Amino acid sequence: MVSAEKPAASSGARRGSPGEGLPPTTLVLPGDEPTAAALIAAAVEVMAVHGYHGTSVRDIAAAAGTSPAILYHHFTSKQGLLATMLDRGLDVLIAATEEALDLAGEDPADRLRAVVGAHVRVHLESQRESLLGNSELRSLEPGARALVVAKRDVQQRIFDRVVRDGVRRGVFGADQPDDAARFVSTACTAVAAWYRPGGRLGPDEIVARYEEIALDAVRYGR
Amino acid sequence: MVSAEKPAASSGARRGSPGEGLPPTTLVLPGDEPTAAALIAAAVEVMAVHGYHGTSVRDIAAAAGTSPAILYHHFTSKQGLLATMLDRGLDVLIAATEEALDLAGEDPADRLRAVVGAHVRVHLESQRESLLGNSELRSLEPGARALVVAKRDVQQRIFDRVVRDGVRRGVFGADQPDDAARFVSTACTAVAAWYRPGGRLGPDEIVARYEEIALDAVRYGR
Repeated sequence: MVSAEKPAASSGARRGSPGEGLPPTTLVLPGDEPTAAALIAAAVEVMAVHGYHGTSVRDIAAAAGTSPAILYHHFTSKQGLLATMLDRGLDVLIAATEEALDLAGEDPADRLRAVVGAHVRVHLESQRESLLGNSELRSLEPGARALVVAKRDVQQRIFDRVVRDGVRRGVFGADQPDDAARFVSTACTAVAAWYRPGGRLGPDEIVARYEEIALDAVRYGR
Repeated sequence: MVSAEKPAASSGARRGSPGEGLPPTTLVLPGDEPTAAALIAAAVEVMAVHGYHGTSVRDIAAAAGTSPAILYHHFTSKQGLLATMLDRGLDVLIAATEEALDLAGEDPADRLRAVVGAHVRVHLESQRESLLGNSELRSLEPGARALVVAKRDVQQRIFDRVVRDGVRRGVFGADQPDDAARFVSTACTAVAAWYRPGGRLGPDEIVARYEEIALDAVRYGR
């Protein structure tokens, strides 16, 4: 969807590069064509305030310093842009979690710390994107929604497997491993809803504390 | 805001009583004037699908079988209606939690079970209302938003006090009581995001399991 093709110059564009002045977003990938990247960053910014349904293609294009025609060129529709955003958000989350797990070794406690740490950190670093993903899932059309839900399930199963494995090896004492895994993953997702930069705890402290509370929740060492 | 005054008959109203055929909502109170109640039920129904910004006063009035003028009469604006909905949602949650705590006695484990049980049950029984409350908080104007955030803080402090009290009495071993309390309350809120009626677990089983996982998360008996 995010074509690397050179877009036609937009008559309505602002001066400067596309998307200049927009905060960076984790939903933009290194190979993205710059105007497509600017449209994604603009959509995050505008939809975070007004929601998907309260945001027009014109609003997004204007915030990106380009035109509606260029948005349609890259994403087909506002719906196509939202689908790209939510799908990428899950890809970022799953990739970070799998990478952390690959580095964690065999110890079940280290593996739970790894997935909790990765999940919390992504939700702190992509706070606006996470909140958008949770509130606008309902705005996706069925096919795109099914894909995002399937990827959410992939992430949940990573937690499930880590907890079940710890229980099987006698390291975690959870009576209901899948329920404990869900309890933990959803508490970690929720950091995006309450975290305030500059508040009582910084990201590293939240990660460290959540890793230990998650171990308690699965009855580590009991 | 929700006046009990008799509204003028609406020329655009459907046949039958106002709001006929709409699913009941916990945001309607026993003393509500029937058309105001129908407007709240209609707003829950329509906004759950299209979001606040994607829903017009005309949409809500039509779903309630009344007219925009009647909505303005009862709630002043779409914003006033949203503020009433979110504010009532928190009132329902806090009242249920305080009542459960009043019945729980002095044992810290029973007190944590009580607040977890009440919080989970409200989020299961008011699933659409809870999801709306979380996704549309951003759509409230600053004054109304500050009130809802203050009430969310009241609910969080109930959890904080129960966990701190258990730690002080040596019954819970949590190293960071406030973080554990936040971990628990947010996991409980999230049931609204994943629960599907007719799924693997019913409300009573979810409540029972979440009460035990919450006790583990605060290191009960350690």
